[in-house]
Amino acid sequence: LTSKLPRVGTTIFTVMSTLASEKKAVNLGQGFPDFNCDPALVDAVSSAMQDGFNQYPPMAGVPALRQAIASKIETIYGYRYDAASDITVTAGATQGLLTAIMCAVHPGDEVIVIEPAYDSYVPAIELAGGKPVLVQMVVGADGYSIPWQQIAAAVTGRTRMIMINSPHNPTGSVLSLADIEALKDIVRGTDILILSDEVYEHMVFDGARHESVCRHPELAERAFVVSSFGKTYHVTGWKIGYVAAPAALSAEFRKVHQYNIFTVNTPVQHGIAQYMQNPAPYLELPAFYQRKRDLFRAGLKNTRFKLLPADGTYFLCVDYSAISSLSEADFAIWLTAEIGVAAIPVSAFYQSPRESGIVRFCFAKQDQTLQLALERLAKI
Amino acid sequence: LTSKLPRVGTTIFTVMSTLASEKKAVNLGQGFPDFNCDPALVDAVSSAMQDGFNQYPPMAGVPALRQAIASKIETIYGYRYDAASDITVTAGATQGLLTAIMCAVHPGDEVIVIEPAYDSYVPAIELAGGKPVLVQMVVGADGYSIPWQQIAAAVTGRTRMIMINSPHNPTGSVLSLADIEALKDIVRGTDILILSDEVYEHMVFDGARHESVCRHPELAERAFVVSSFGKTYHVTGWKIGYVAAPAALSAEFRKVHQYNIFTVNTPVQHGIAQYMQNPAPYLELPAFYQRKRDLFRAGLKNTRFKLLPADGTYFLCVDYSAISSLSEADFAIWLTAEIGVAAIPVSAFYQSPRESGIVRFCFAKQDQTLQLALERLAKI
Ligand SMILES: CSCCC(=O)C(=O)O
Ligand SMILES: CSCCC(=O)C(=O)O
Repeated sequence: LTSKLPRVGTTIFTVMSTLASEKKAVNLGQGFPDFNCDPALVDAVSSAMQDGFNQYPPMAGVPALRQAIASKIETIYGYRYDAASDITVTAGATQGLLTAIMCAVHPGDEVIVIEPAYDSYVPAIELAGGKPVLVQMVVGADGYSIPWQQIAAAVTGRTRMIMINSPHNPTGSVLSLADIEALKDIVRGTDILILSDEVYEHMVFDGARHESVCRHPELAERAFVVSSFGKTYHVTGWKIGYVAAPAALSAEFRKVHQYNIFTVNTPVQHGIAQYMQNPAPYLELPAFYQRKRDLFRAGLKNTRFKLLPADGTYFLCVDYSAISSLSEADFAIWLTAEIGVAAIPVSAFYQSPRESGIVRFCFAKQDQTLQLALERLAKI
Repeated sequence: LTSKLPRVGTTIFTVMSTLASEKKAVNLGQGFPDFNCDPALVDAVSSAMQDGFNQYPPMAGVPALRQAIASKIETIYGYRYDAASDITVTAGATQGLLTAIMCAVHPGDEVIVIEPAYDSYVPAIELAGGKPVLVQMVVGADGYSIPWQQIAAAVTGRTRMIMINSPHNPTGSVLSLADIEALKDIVRGTDILILSDEVYEHMVFDGARHESVCRHPELAERAFVVSSFGKTYHVTGWKIGYVAAPAALSAEFRKVHQYNIFTVNTPVQHGIAQYMQNPAPYLELPAFYQRKRDLFRAGLKNTRFKLLPADGTYFLCVDYSAISSLSEADFAIWLTAEIGVAAIPVSAFYQSPRESGIVRFCFAKQDQTLQLALERLAKI
C-alpha cells in the first residue's frame, strides 16, 4: 500500500504523552486539562441520553445548538450568521479543519500556512491534493510575529486559501488589529478564502480582545471560522466543535461533512446547547486561565528558562538556550525523562527542521500540578 | 467556490425524514430505531463522564474498547486481530469508510462499487480522487444477487479496491459462501483491497450466519472491515464504530484518521467498552429484529406490495409495481404525503437513473409504529 501521507508518523502529542506516563513525568505536553469539567455539563448530557436523544440528529447539528452558537457569535463579535445555513457542528475542530480544506481545495491549489502551525494543517492540505505554501513567523525579543510582506509575496494565481490561527498554538500569540488589516489588504479583490482556527477564542489575557475574523465582515464573508467546545468547556475528549461560514461556503462544507462523519453525537449536542444558555463559563475563562498563566510564569522566573510572551491559549513557550544546546525534540525528551516534566518541542510545528531553542508548556493544569512541575524545573 | 462534489445534494435520508415530520407520516425511511437504548448503556457513559474520562483518549481508541472489539471478532468469526495495531475506533461507520478510502485510494485509482450502494461510497471515492466503477446487482424473483462475472470483468490494472456490504443496505440481502468464494477468486494473486461494510453484522435472520470477511483470512488479510455500534446498540446518534484491518493497512488508516478527527468521544468509548462485556445484547439482536421483520412482513401480506426477501439488516424492500407506475422517488413522496408512511426509493442508491419499482422500509421500530404503518399501507 503506497502511503497517501508518507511523512506522517505518530503525532508529537501522542509521543510525549506516552513518554510522560512511562517516566511518570508531570505532563505539560499535550494540551488538555488535568481537572474535570463542570458537573452541570455532565448532567446535561446524561439527561439528554435518558430523555432518548440517542438517534441521528440533523446532519448539520441540533438546531438549538446551532442557534446558541450563532447567538454567542453575534453577542461577542457582532457578526450575524444564519443558524440554519451557516453553522455546522463538527466532531471537534480537527474534523472541521480537514472538512473545510477538503471542500475548498482542489488538486494543485495552494494554501498559505504560517509556521509554527498545528500539525494537522499540512497533511489535510496534502490529502485534498493541495500544495502547502509555508511562511515562517519571526521570533524576536517580543515573541512571535507574522511577516505579512512575505505572505503577500507568497500569494499567486493558484492561492486558494490562507490559514490563520489566533490565539495561536503553540506560541500563545494573538493577532492584533494591525495583523487583521494586513490580512485584509492581501485578500481584498482576490477570491482567496480564509480558514481561521479560533479554538482558543475564549482564552485571551490582560483585557485584550480576540480579533475574531467574525469582527471583520470583509474577512468573515470569505472565511471558515473553526472553534472547539473541548477547549472552552474542559472536555477535549468529547470531540465537538463547529465551523461557521457564509451559506455558500457552508453548503460546500456540508457536502463533504455529510460523507465524512455525517453528523455529531446527539446527546453531547443537546447537553452543550443547554449548557451554553449560561454564558458565565466562557466569559470567566480568560480570568480562569490568566491566573494559571501568571502562577506558572511567576514560578518560571525562578528557573533558567527565558519566558516568551503568552497573550492567549493555555500554552506558554520558553527559550531554553541558556540551559542546553540540545535540539528541541531531544531537550523535550530529556526534560521528560530526566527532570520529570513533559513539554512539546516547537520544531514539531514546522515541516522542515527548525531549531529555535524553544519548547511549549501547557498550563491547563491544577495549581498543584503546576507547582510540582515548577519545583522540578527550578532544579535544572 | 468550485464544488468538489458538484452532484451532491441533501441526502435522501434527510429529505424523507424532513418530509415525514412535515406530513406527520410514520417514518419508515431513514434507518434508526424509534425506541431508546438499554438504560445500562446510558449509565455506563454517564459514569465515565462522572469519573472524569473527558479528555483525549489514545488516538486509535480506548485500549479496553479495542480489546473488547478484538475479542468479540475472535469469538464470533475466529479471526485474531491485534487490538493495539489492528483496531481503530471511528466516529461512526461513515467516517471509517471515508478514512479507509482516503488512505488507500490514490488519484486515478479505480474502486469497484456494487449498486445499489450506500450513498456515501461514491462521494468518498471522488474526494480521494479515485474513479468509482459501478456494477449493478441483478433483481430477480429471489431478490438481489451479485453478478460476479461482471465484477471480474470490471477489474483492471488500476483497480485498487472492491467495496462490499453484507448484510446489505438497502436490499436486506446477505452474502453467501458462494459469493465469498467468487470474491476470493477475483482478488487472488492481485493487490486489490477489500472494503467490507458490515455495520449490520448482528442482524442476520433464520439462523443463517454472517459471512464476515473476518471468517476468511484470505480476504481479511487485505480488508478494512467496518462496523457500527450505533446499529448494534440502538444509538445511531452516538457516532461510534470501528475499522479492523491488518497492521500495515491500519497504520495507513490511522495516518488519515488522526488528521481527520484525531479520536472519538472518550466517555462513549469507555461506556461501550464496559457494556460489551456482556455479549447478550448483540447475541440477542437477530431474534429481536427477526421478530419485527416477521411481524412487518405478515402485515404486508395484506397489502398490494410484493415482498422481496429480507435476510439481514433492519430494512425490507417491496415492489410496488402492482400499485403505481410512479418513479421510486415520486412514489416514496406520495406514500409519505398521501398515505402517511415514509419510505426510501432504492433509486437513491444508484448513480444513474434506475427504476425498479422498489422502495425500502425500515422496521427498527416499536411494534405499535409498525402496526400503524401497516394499517395505513393496507388502505392503498
Ligand atoms: C489532538 S492532541 C493535541 C492537543 C493540542 O491541541 C495540542 O497539544 O497542541
Ligand atoms: C446516515 S443517515 C442514513 C441511515 C442509514 O444508514 C440508512 O437509512 O440507510
